[in-house]
Formats: sequence, C-alpha cells, structure tokens
Amino acid sequence: MPKKVDHEARRLEISEALWRIASTRGLDGVSLRDVAAEADISLGRLQHYFRTKDEMLLFALRHINVLADRRIRERVSAVAADLGGEPPPRRVLRECLAGMLPLDEKSRVGALVGAAYFARAVHDDRLSAEAQEGIPKLAEFFAGLLREAMERGEVVAGRDADDEAMRLISLVDGLTAYTLLGVQGAERALGLLDGYLEGLFVG
Amino acid sequence: MPKKVDHEARRLEISEALWRIASTRGLDGVSLRDVAAEADISLGRLQHYFRTKDEMLLFALRHINVLADRRIRERVSAVAADLGGEPPPRRVLRECLAGMLPLDEKSRVGALVGAAYFARAVHDDRLSAEAQEGIPKLAEFFAGLLREAMERGEVVAGRDADDEAMRLISLVDGLTAYTLLGVQGAERALGLLDGYLEGLFVG
Repeated sequence: MPKKVDHEARRLEISEALWRIASTRGLDGVSLRDVAAEADISLGRLQHYFRTKDEMLLFALRHINVLADRRIRERVSAVAADLGGEPPPRRVLRECLAGMLPLDEKSRVGALVGAAYFARAVHDDRLSAEAQEGIPKLAEFFAGLLREAMERGEVVAGRDADDEAMRLISLVDGLTAYTLLGVQGAERALGLLDGYLEGLFVG
Repeated sequence: MPKKVDHEARRLEISEALWRIASTRGLDGVSLRDVAAEADISLGRLQHYFRTKDEMLLFALRHINVLADRRIRERVSAVAADLGGEPPPRRVLRECLAGMLPLDEKSRVGALVGAAYFARAVHDDRLSAEAQEGIPKLAEFFAGLLREAMERGEVVAGRDADDEAMRLISLVDGLTAYTLLGVQGAERALGLLDGYLEGLFVG
C-alpha cells in the first residue's frame, strides 16, 4: 500500500476505535491511551497519527460527516432512481434532513460522536471553527433548495429561505438530541420533522 | 444555620464551583478533585456532599433548571405588570422559549452545564431519566398554552398542540447549540425563534 494511503487507513482504524467508545460509554474523560487500547495498538503508535484527543475527535467527526454526506447522497439517488429523474427540491431537502436524524445504527453513532464533539467544541475555538464553517455551508445548500421550491410556488408565503434553512438545521439538531436522550423514539422525531415540512410547503 | 439548610447551602457552593468550570473549560475529564480545588475544600469534604461526578452534575443541572424557571417566571410577571393583567398564551410561550436561549451570562452558563449533561446523559440511564421526565412535562405545559391559543383562534389551522410543543423545544435546543458553538449570535437565535412563532400564530 502506498505510504499516504496507509497513513489514512490507520487513521480511519483509530477513528473506528474512537467511534466504538463514543457509541458505548461516551468520550468524557477518555484518553489517547484508552483509544490506543481499543484500537489494539501502542500509545506511541497512536500518537504517530494523532497528537491530541481534539485532533483525533476532529478527524473522526469529519470522517463521520463524509459518511453521512455519502449516505444522504445515496438516499437522494435512490429517490431519483425511483422517480426516474431529478427529485423535486422539497424531496431532496426532506431526504437530507431525515438523513441527519439518528434513524439507524450508523447515523446514531454519528450523532453520538457529534454529542461528544459538541460538549468540547463549546469551549474550544479550534473545534468550534468546524461548525462555524460547515453549518453555514449546509444552511446555504438548504436555502438554495428552498429558493428553488419558492420559484416553483411550493413554499408557503412570507418565508425567508436563509432563516428557514437555519431553523430546519436547528430543529433536526434538537430532535436528534432528544432522540439520543430517549425522550422520544427516532420515528417520532421523523414524524415531527415531516409535520414541520408539511406546514412549510404548499400542497 | 439549621443542619439541613447548611447541607443544601454547601451543595450549592460546590455546584457554583462546578458551573465556573463548566462555563470556562467544560466538564470533559473534570474530576471530583478538580471541583473540590475550585470550591477550595478538600476532596473528602466534597465527597460528603456528592459521591460521584454524575450526582454532582445532576444536582447542578436541577438547580440551574430551578434558576431558569424562576428567571422565566420573572419575565412573564414583568410582562403581566406591563400589560396590567395576565399576558395572552402566545406571549407567555414566547417569554418561556426566549428564556431558554443563551441570551445573557446566566442563561449561557446554564446552557453550558446543559451541554456537559447532554454529552454524558446519552450514555447514562440515570442521567437521561432527568430529561425523560422533565421534557414531556415542559412539552405538556407548552401544549396547554398552545391549546389555549387555539381556542382563542390565534394559531394557524392544522397544527397539533403536542407536536408543536415538542418541535418548539427541539428548535430552541438546536438554536442554543449553534449559539454556544458561535455559528450564530444570540440575537439571531432569538430572531429565528420569533420568526417561527410568527408563522405559527395568526395576526
């Protein structure tokens, strides 16, 4: 294996060890040594790939976001295949938002890593920079879909695309949190999202 | 001071030390020893009041919720005094929801303790039981206000009070998270909440 690929593959293996810990007992108080043990490598070897816990958490979070992105694209492609063409913007938006909810094991692990990230990032400028960059990009993408739907006359009057995009992201974030806490089931969270979209779109 | 009051006062002092840590560097990896040092007492003395980190976190969270509750009641009373009578349900709901956002230093500290609680509670049944009990009660209170507003013909048609209550709580939770992460300012979060309420109520 070329050296660069190998390096990346090792980082992914370590990330997976981190995810396993994140999805079972959480990352509070977890050290590099704990992750090395879970990955069955030495601490020294782990530190060759990640110098700090935050560096490791950021890599794991980014990779989980890449996987989530891929999963959501697949959802949208499946809908496109079903419909035999490009799905309408409302449908694309719905699949993206539903894909952000912890509806299955993979998205649940992603959300749990997200929860660990969140608790640390509120105190760490380098970690929070990730959200400060990524969330506005996501909001812009959703606002674009909403504007497209507006041009087609599919959105109720008086809504602002940028505001609505940020509200949708916030709503899904809150629904995810209360699903992880066991306040509601994942299906109920999806129902609450769909109900909101029904009020946002006409017809 | 009577013994019981004294015990409670000591627990509050320790909670305040925990809040100071929560609001500056977060609680990830923080030990009972760290909190004892911040409270300027011995570890043994701290353990007289709290045996575990989770016990301490739960007490601190509950007390922060009591303070938030009091702050929100004061907001509602101030509005009532202004209006010279009971505010309409829409206004009560708005003050409650706005009071949950990190708009000032006190509510911000509350939200940061909430973030630390969240990251641990997703892996801990005893901690998550708090949300599983408290959130439905809060949702029921909001649903009651919404039903009252519905009877007055103030809510747009076709909304379900229970669904809407849970969506509002989730929205505020997500808006709080992105404010803590610095994705948006607190005023923007409040504007997004108010915009949502404008779409929910008529007139």
